[in-house]
Parts: sequence; C-alpha cells; structure tokens
Amino acid sequence: MTGKNANNGKGNTSRLLGGIEGGGTRFNCAIGPSPDEIWARNSFPTTAPEETFARVVEFFKEGEAEYGALSAIGVASFGPVDLQQQSGYYGHITTTPKPHWRYTDVVGHLKRMWDIPVAFDTDVNGAARGEGAFGAARGLDNFVYVTVGTGIGAGIVAHGRPLNGAMHPEVGHMRLPRAAEDLHFPGCCQYHGDCLEGLASGPAIEARWGQKGETLPADHPAWTMQAEYLSMLCMNLTLCYAPERIILGGGVMARRQLLPMIRERFAALMNGYTELSAVSPQDYIVPPSLGERSGEVGALVAAERLAG
Amino acid sequence: MTGKNANNGKGNTSRLLGGIEGGGTRFNCAIGPSPDEIWARNSFPTTAPEETFARVVEFFKEGEAEYGALSAIGVASFGPVDLQQQSGYYGHITTTPKPHWRYTDVVGHLKRMWDIPVAFDTDVNGAARGEGAFGAARGLDNFVYVTVGTGIGAGIVAHGRPLNGAMHPEVGHMRLPRAAEDLHFPGCCQYHGDCLEGLASGPAIEARWGQKGETLPADHPAWTMQAEYLSMLCMNLTLCYAPERIILGGGVMARRQLLPMIRERFAALMNGYTELSAVSPQDYIVPPSLGERSGEVGALVAAERLAG
Repeated sequence: MTGKNANNGKGNTSRLLGGIEGGGTRFNCAIGPSPDEIWARNSFPTTAPEETFARVVEFFKEGEAEYGALSAIGVASFGPVDLQQQSGYYGHITTTPKPHWRYTDVVGHLKRMWDIPVAFDTDVNGAARGEGAFGAARGLDNFVYVTVGTGIGAGIVAHGRPLNGAMHPEVGHMRLPRAAEDLHFPGCCQYHGDCLEGLASGPAIEARWGQKGETLPADHPAWTMQAEYLSMLCMNLTLCYAPERIILGGGVMARRQLLPMIRERFAALMNGYTELSAVSPQDYIVPPSLGERSGEVGALVAAERLAG
Repeated sequence: MTGKNANNGKGNTSRLLGGIEGGGTRFNCAIGPSPDEIWARNSFPTTAPEETFARVVEFFKEGEAEYGALSAIGVASFGPVDLQQQSGYYGHITTTPKPHWRYTDVVGHLKRMWDIPVAFDTDVNGAARGEGAFGAARGLDNFVYVTVGTGIGAGIVAHGRPLNGAMHPEVGHMRLPRAAEDLHFPGCCQYHGDCLEGLASGPAIEARWGQKGETLPADHPAWTMQAEYLSMLCMNLTLCYAPERIILGGGVMARRQLLPMIRERFAALMNGYTELSAVSPQDYIVPPSLGERSGEVGALVAAERLAG
C-alpha cells in the first residue's frame, strides 16, 4: 500500500473502500475503510458518461494519493442495469432513456482504471443494502426500500439478499387501480402511460397539477391522491414479498405529511388480511434513517463484501 | 424397515416418502421412493380436519404395511399457513375462512403419528417445487407458479428457493386496474372486494356472469376480461420478480383459449419495457407440465430433501 498517509491519522489502513451511487441526476462518491467510516465524499451532476467517469476517477485517484490504494469499489447505479455475470452486458446500464447512457459499461470504465473487485448493483438495491446494514432495516432479513422521485423503484431484500431474478425487479412500473378522482390524467410513463410511475412519480405530479410537488401546499388534493397510490403500492409489495418493513424514500417522500396518510390508507386497504396487518403501521412503513446517504453507504457495504 | 414387501418388486427401498397436497377442496396423498416414482395415490374431499386427517393416516398406514416405514413426509397446504419455524403456530393453517380449519395444526397431527421429519409449505410453493424439479420450470432458478381457481395464489421461486418473507406471499389479493368493461361488479373478495381474486377467481366469474366459467361459451366476453386481469397479473409479477418463466395453472386456466389471449395482451401491456419483454411469450407464460399433480410431486420433493 502506498500513499501520503500522514494526514489526520488516516491512511495506513489495511483496507480502503470506494462507493459510488450513480444516480440519473447526481453521482455521489465516498471513500473510507468501512461503510460507517467515510473519510471523503464528493457529489456532482450526472452529465455525459465520459465526463462523469472522469470526475469519478479524479475523486478516487485523489483519495488514493491521500489514503492509500483502494481494495474494492461498490457501485449502486441507476438503470435498467445488467446484473447477470454471464451476460455480455454485465455491469452496463442498458436500455435507459437517458441521453448518451444507453449501454454504458460502468464496471468496464472502473476496471480499466483499477484491477480490483468491483461490485455492481441497482441504485435501489444499494440503498436497501445501506439501510439494511446501518439504517431503518438493520437486523431484518426481509424488507423493501422504495424511492419515489423522478422515477419509482424498489430494492427488495429477501432471505437476507437483494432479490434479482432474470434481471432486477422494476416495481415502479406495476399496474394499480386509478384513484377515484384521477380518471382523466393519461399518465407520463413513456412505456406504459398510467403505470404507477406514470401516475405517482415527481414528473407525474408536475404533469397532472401543472407545478412541481415542492410548490404545492400541504393541503393540496395532490397529496391525498399520492397517498392513495403509494398505499396501494405498499399493499401490493406486502402481498408480493411479505416483508418485515417497507422503507419509503426519495424526493417526493420529503413531504412529511405523506407518510402518516399512507400508513392510514394502507391499513384500511389491507382490512385485516393476514397477520401482516397486525404489525403497527408506524413500525412497518418508515422513512429511511440514512436519509440521502443510503445508496452510497450501500455501495460501500457491497465493496466491503468483495474486499473480504 | 418392516412391511410385507413382496409385492411387485416394491418395498425394500432404503427410503420411502409421503406427499400430501392439502387443498381446500381435495386432499391428494402419494407414497413412493422418489417424487418421480409414485407407488400409490389417493384423493378424497377435504371435510372436517379430524375426518380428513383420519383418511390421510389410513392411507399412509396402509402404504407402510405394504412398502415399509416412511422416512419423511412433505405437505403442501392451503392457507394462509404459518411457515415461521420459531412461531407458536408453525405448521398450522391459520386465518382461513374455511369452516373448522382455522388454526388447524397440520404438522402436529402428522407428528403425533410419525416421529419422522415433516416438511410444510403452501400449496402453491409445493406446486412450484414440483414444476421446478420435474415440470415446466425444470432447471430454472427464478420462476412463478400461479393457480387461478377457487382462489388465486402463487408460489415464487427466487434464487432457487421458495420466497417466504415474514410470511408467504399472497399475490392473489393484489390491486390491479379495472378492465374497461368491468366498472360495476363490486368483486367478491370478503376482505378486499375488488382485489385480483375478487375480480378474476372462479367464484368471481360466477358472481359476475351468473353462471360458472365451465358453462360459458368460448366466445363469451368473460374470457377477454379474464385475459385482461391475468395479463396484468403477469405484468406485475414480471416487474416484481423478474422471473425466467410464469406457469399459469388452476381450474380457470383449463379453458385452453385463455393462455394465448393472456400472452398477446401481456406483450402489449409490457410494450417492450426491459429485456424481459424480449423473451417469447410462448416460452415465458406456460401451462404446468405436471397438470394437477404439481402439488403432490412438490410435496414429495420437499420430503425427499428432509429424508437426505
């Protein structure tokens, strides 16, 4: 291990981890010896891939100069991504509508710079991993982390590991009933129109009401409608995975009044069905406890596993 | 090992397995040295628990007299059931609406008769296990087995094992959009009204159209509506689990014209979203290949694992 590591008592660790939360809007990078000990962080907008990766590399090269060589890197990436190790596109962002990012080789970019293990997963699996290790789902083997923002997605942990089938789940695009007061808005998903993401993401709120959610007052009918859709999502997630907890994060959930409305409506919808209804909604549907850092912590957790 | 085992070259096996598919309507029992070698079977109606278990015991005791002692028993049971080993109700059918069966101790009944390992799972997990070992999902690590009949339920296999969280999933009760022509039928689920089971199970067909599905002609609008609901189910299952295959079984699926209608509508609904849409619907949404025997074969597969 090399590096000018006389600063702050840092460095000279036997292990240094890199974590990347690659979001569609921002990239967050972190470096440290452990997911709960971060020595440096950086955040920058997601621009074109080459420019974005140049900033990632710059951050970690500076970190290595300061603290020593990286042992492993974990990436929690926006998607869709290819997680099948045997696939020719493993480690790529695949069919994203985001300009310039279709079939971007994320793992390849990193592997060309560092000959070390690179863990690769979805942004939501990363956030789930972070919340599972250090946050609101600590100690649980079965839980769901949902983000409601520009898009809607979820990382599902089942039997202690992120659930990925032939690809990663995409629960944000599930079909749900229309809210009674929402019969005419066509939805804004470019694939499905009025799937959940088309009806309840941040862009859907803006398209339906003509202004961004952040600017809508707390008593606006948008929030009752939002609670209706998200409580139905929680119901379907409960029936599909029987989790011990559902964590609701993302920009839309920053509106604090939403969570109690969702809990109340969820209990009404479930109507006492199965023991799952017996759990107190306060303990069952919760906010992330790592806030906006779930994803980068989760990326470090994944790196740590590979670093051994 | 004891037994009058001179018959048919049977008996004298080092291992004998019992399989029980405990359905809400019928119990099916099977005995043999392996899930694909069944020496005797019996099927009888599900009456009150004591009487039903008396017939189960009678069948297996006769089998033991013929072939030798059982090594292990597997049960695939109607539910809801308690699958948590540490629970006080492990091995019970719990909050079922079926008269006399609430909190019935299935595993306890068997354990009182046989001091051997007893595997316990849901009927749909059992059917999924059977199809995974010897049927339409052979060789796959991620797939879903759905039954559409008196109720709607699914066994989900993820990363090679049945998915059970805090309890088993209950996807039959998920919320889905109403079909355009189905705006007034209230649904028949006693918990949720118009959840999927309330809209698309066998009893829902009968309640909506005033006659049983079996008696409706092939060109009746009921089938287009049924295909709409079941293709939306397949879409949500695809987005939730990203399975490699979905198997659709159960009495309602016995109407052969339904499957191609569901495949066609599913492809339209997915609209090319993610690589999952690239799979041919003919290979992706399929009938069970063990027919009505998936559950009992799966129960034997579970017994086999415990027999070592």
